[in-house]
Amino acid sequence: MTQDSVNRTLGIRPATAPSTALLTDHYELTMVDAALKDGTAQRECVFELFARKLPNDRRYGVSVGIGRALELLEHFRFSDAELQFLSDTKVVSPETVDWLANYRFSGSIRGYREGEVYFPQSPLLEVRSSFAEGVVLETLLLSVYNYDSAVASAAARMVSAADGRPLAEMGSRRTGERSAVAAARAAYIAGFAATSNLEAGRAWGVPTMGTAAHSWTLLHESEEEAFRSQVESLGVDTTLLVDTYDVEQGVRNAVAAAGTDLGGVRIDSGDLPVQVREVRDQLDDLGAVNTKITVTNDLDEFAIAALAASPVDSFGVGTSVVTGSGSVASGMVYKLVARKDARDNWVPVAKASPGKHSVGGLKFPVRRRDEGVASGELISVGGLPVGDDDDRPLYVDFVVDGEIDRQWIGPAGVTRAREHHAMAIAELPRTARRLGRGEPALATYYIDEHGNTSLA
Amino acid sequence: MTQDSVNRTLGIRPATAPSTALLTDHYELTMVDAALKDGTAQRECVFELFARKLPNDRRYGVSVGIGRALELLEHFRFSDAELQFLSDTKVVSPETVDWLANYRFSGSIRGYREGEVYFPQSPLLEVRSSFAEGVVLETLLLSVYNYDSAVASAAARMVSAADGRPLAEMGSRRTGERSAVAAARAAYIAGFAATSNLEAGRAWGVPTMGTAAHSWTLLHESEEEAFRSQVESLGVDTTLLVDTYDVEQGVRNAVAAAGTDLGGVRIDSGDLPVQVREVRDQLDDLGAVNTKITVTNDLDEFAIAALAASPVDSFGVGTSVVTGSGSVASGMVYKLVARKDARDNWVPVAKASPGKHSVGGLKFPVRRRDEGVASGELISVGGLPVGDDDDRPLYVDFVVDGEIDRQWIGPAGVTRAREHHAMAIAELPRTARRLGRGEPALATYYIDEHGNTSLA
Repeated sequence: MTQDSVNRTLGIRPATAPSTALLTDHYELTMVDAALKDGTAQRECVFELFARKLPNDRRYGVSVGIGRALELLEHFRFSDAELQFLSDTKVVSPETVDWLANYRFSGSIRGYREGEVYFPQSPLLEVRSSFAEGVVLETLLLSVYNYDSAVASAAARMVSAADGRPLAEMGSRRTGERSAVAAARAAYIAGFAATSNLEAGRAWGVPTMGTAAHSWTLLHESEEEAFRSQVESLGVDTTLLVDTYDVEQGVRNAVAAAGTDLGGVRIDSGDLPVQVREVRDQLDDLGAVNTKITVTNDLDEFAIAALAASPVDSFGVGTSVVTGSGSVASGMVYKLVARKDARDNWVPVAKASPGKHSVGGLKFPVRRRDEGVASGELISVGGLPVGDDDDRPLYVDFVVDGEIDRQWIGPAGVTRAREHHAMAIAELPRTARRLGRGEPALATYYIDEHGNTSLA
Repeated sequence: MTQDSVNRTLGIRPATAPSTALLTDHYELTMVDAALKDGTAQRECVFELFARKLPNDRRYGVSVGIGRALELLEHFRFSDAELQFLSDTKVVSPETVDWLANYRFSGSIRGYREGEVYFPQSPLLEVRSSFAEGVVLETLLLSVYNYDSAVASAAARMVSAADGRPLAEMGSRRTGERSAVAAARAAYIAGFAATSNLEAGRAWGVPTMGTAAHSWTLLHESEEEAFRSQVESLGVDTTLLVDTYDVEQGVRNAVAAAGTDLGGVRIDSGDLPVQVREVRDQLDDLGAVNTKITVTNDLDEFAIAALAASPVDSFGVGTSVVTGSGSVASGMVYKLVARKDARDNWVPVAKASPGKHSVGGLKFPVRRRDEGVASGELISVGGLPVGDDDDRPLYVDFVVDGEIDRQWIGPAGVTRAREHHAMAIAELPRTARRLGRGEPALATYYIDEHGNTSLA
């Protein structure tokens, strides 16, 4: 076993991973600069990451990102390259450069488990630290959560629409090259079976798959020659792409090349419900009754649902899953919700901007359940634990006093998140499966320290 | 000068940059595997990167990505970590692992300059190499081009709508953490003045900006205290965020804290046309006649255009620019368009899939111009040079026989791209500035070897 595969098994990233410290907005460091000067930098604060609403009036969202965020946090270090840049460009004063040189996050982070479903105002992440240590994480945490959760939230709906038939994520080419890896990971947590993205396989243990593109057929003198060569190389259980020229001829060539044991055919264009039916009949007529059909043409959750009665065996989804099916940013924000005052008491704080208000105070969220079925999102404001035996507390610790709990990272963290997601989805009421616009599947309630509840 | 700043000036990335070789779809390596077995791996091929149409019926697109792609190409090397993964998971045969271990792109790449405008079927990039060397670049090139060009295409319309007033990109938190850096770069090439993203400043020389968030105000006992502290730290020409609680009171507090020389105020919520007018009047009444107003509330090109008559001095744009303003994937594809036959002649190849056909053959594109104004996109199919003195050839060489032309990479490449973009936009007919849906500003024509032209 090489060191790399040992590392991979243990979920350890290479030490040469680049610094993530400048994946940060300029104003965060300007604030640190000013806070170091006026003495507020060390003030203890709580920042909260949440979404005011679900995109596109969906029924639920899926919180994904913490496993990646924790690894990026480990590399949130200002090395010479970063410090020199900040110094050369005078983004901050020399005193702040020195402070940044020693930056290590020493606070605590807790929140919703990766793969958990969420609703408007669900307090997905709580960062408790000095102002200066917490404020600089705003952009990095939001970038990860907003993108990864957008993909997972779309992917979960596709999994639901596919109703047990496997889905493969193959949209790497439709999103930034590193976002592609995150997308493959997020879709897998949300129930996809595999990805085309090799780096997601290497870094996160997501199963990878793929056989050939149209260029393979075009490279050869004829489609039949291309098919024969592919079968020779990959075996008869490969999947042949049959729509380069003419689908009917393509299916004939495929069975001629592989025989009736051919593993599968892939269709990447055309009017799918009609096409799939025709191909199934043709395969059956040719005796290839066990040959599977996979479709990959511009699918989203609605197109998948429309193929419910078609003899499709599996789906490949590209653009729509990596772009969050119309909502590529989840609309999550990171707000200061509480700070300590001079007498060391927590003071809830909130902004009042129209349409963008926040709810101050520490939170403690539980998933209310009645006989195992989720019935509400109950958030204690003030932070006191609430809920009865049936309810499920939603916070777990990710970082305690600067120490990252490593069970949440690496491939093992992905496996854990995928399992947790399946449980959280199974617990939702049936209305959650509706694809159309509507109300969230669960209402969010606040409960104050006197036990009074109100709708969020 | 440190080594790092020398490197930055020269546009050299750290040697420890991670491998990009697995930012690749599984099927590309499966094809290489099969092609090494059947002898087609060394067949000379031309792949073309292009878009069949413009997103959202826009008037033009902006091609951005080559500067990043060339740097990623330099790191497209299969090191031990990548090879071990491919070997462990049996994605390819041991012979192919050996071939990949020695992979260096030795072909040639030419295409549209970074920042160039494009139209449907514009052949943005031509990759000429052996099949095996070229096919493995498909996903990486498309990821970069699809995302970066989506951002640049949206950004260019915002720049046009802002009509001379400066724009800052501040959407890092609304896209994947590494895509954020690419987005800042792309928006800058398309004419934005600055970004909030610090890594874009360090890596690409994009000017960065920012002062404070709402958390800064909430951290302090009062808004006025927060403003006074900010002014003390950043000077009176800073920009104060005035909408945490009440805008009118915020403006009063701002001028009280900084005096009438206050640099600017920022408004991040509310009904902007009304709000901006009121704030301008209030600032003028308070004597702060030179204080600028910047707005940052969910702007896109349409919202910016709607503020044409408002006394806004600058715009900050977040979500919409980093998500391509409704089109986050540009729809670009990478297709095999020609290959050599056994007698070393080029054979044009094309797929015929409905709605997804491609045009075979080598291309040579020029921007047709009449008295300096662009009037058409003329593409010679077959690759013979066309065009008269007025026309502008669109291809430049990026890689020749494996050697990257370094003028296109690093911060210097970004500066070059930004200048080229400004020229290419200025050359377009006035119809290109229309924000509404419609026909491309230029029609695309093919011209064959006999001089016959046809609409694409």
